[in-house]
Amino acid sequence: MRIALIGGTGDIGEGLALRWGVETDHTIVIGSRDAERAAERAESYAETVESCGGRAEFEGLENVAAADGADVVVLSVPPFHVADTVDAIAGSVTGVLVSPAVGISRDESGFHYRPPPTGSVTELVAEHAPEGVPVVGAFHNLAAGRLTDLDADLGIDVLVVADDEDAKATVSSLAEDIPGIRALDAGPIVNAAEVESVTPLLINVAQRNDGLHDLGVSFE
Amino acid sequence: MRIALIGGTGDIGEGLALRWGVETDHTIVIGSRDAERAAERAESYAETVESCGGRAEFEGLENVAAADGADVVVLSVPPFHVADTVDAIAGSVTGVLVSPAVGISRDESGFHYRPPPTGSVTELVAEHAPEGVPVVGAFHNLAAGRLTDLDADLGIDVLVVADDEDAKATVSSLAEDIPGIRALDAGPIVNAAEVESVTPLLINVAQRNDGLHDLGVSFE
Repeated sequence: MRIALIGGTGDIGEGLALRWGVETDHTIVIGSRDAERAAERAESYAETVESCGGRAEFEGLENVAAADGADVVVLSVPPFHVADTVDAIAGSVTGVLVSPAVGISRDESGFHYRPPPTGSVTELVAEHAPEGVPVVGAFHNLAAGRLTDLDADLGIDVLVVADDEDAKATVSSLAEDIPGIRALDAGPIVNAAEVESVTPLLINVAQRNDGLHDLGVSFE
Repeated sequence: MRIALIGGTGDIGEGLALRWGVETDHTIVIGSRDAERAAERAESYAETVESCGGRAEFEGLENVAAADGADVVVLSVPPFHVADTVDAIAGSVTGVLVSPAVGISRDESGFHYRPPPTGSVTELVAEHAPEGVPVVGAFHNLAAGRLTDLDADLGIDVLVVADDEDAKATVSSLAEDIPGIRALDAGPIVNAAEVESVTPLLINVAQRNDGLHDLGVSFE
């Protein structure tokens, strides 16, 4: 499988790239607005993965080229860039679009869920996705630091929302390629807001309780 | 300590009454709009608790009388009755007001978080609470069935929000009186929405994934 990580030079993109790199034999394409930066990062991830015995292939390309021909395209960009990014790659995307971004504001009380007017970032992606391209919301609640630290145990759940059941199954299976991740079905993408809003909660809890950091969520 | 469970004849009230009854020596007051029904339920809970070796005292009273003199008053009523209930007991409440209710709507896609215009039910309680009465949001994400089943292990977290740190500590300690519950600080009550919105998510996940039911959440 060919997986493109659009914005794959960012922290959540790096975490997914390294974990899939070590655990699968997929081809992982790091996308960036800057092709040179994408190539540099792809090479750096490949070295890390190889040193851990991983066998995935890495490529680094500008975002539009990265999306082209990928079976799965993960939009690992900040929430306020998501709509523009989908519009920019719309001509080349044919695979499943995956949205992990969450709109969050911060004030003196902590972190707060701030969805776009569409209801959630996942639904915003669906609004901008080209006709026929399925959209899946997933990986919203992963702590990038814990994902990137390949020695860190996960033992957490990934909530997956999608209207297309095949696309949901593909992404759930990709999530479970990473040991310690269980993928759970949270329904269609209209249910994405409740999934996304867990992310600011995780940050609030991690900041306010001793001994907790880089938290994930588990349903028991 | 004297704990009033307003609407304590309902399912979450029953669960908390039974668990605190078995695990503590607090006095537990079951409140209802109907004093006779409150007394019947208090007697029934007392029998269950006694048969499990519990030593808590139970009383059953009409809501206003139940709140009178209680150190902690739990508003275990449906979200659309919360404001009216706080107004009704306002003259007798002096203890900490605890809000566990969540606004939820349901359609063919699943369950959705629907907060009141104040932002959350917890903030609605704060808006209606008498001057000087601290408000704590807690127990939103407990599955009543699992709480009521005294043989069921919990192993879950209770997220606590409050602006008054003493009140937060009191309620966190009460939560942890129940074995298998860990209380986590989620900040001031302006952070309540992200806590409350976990509840419809838990129901969606339980309905859509085999083998999962009466779910709780754990932060790891």
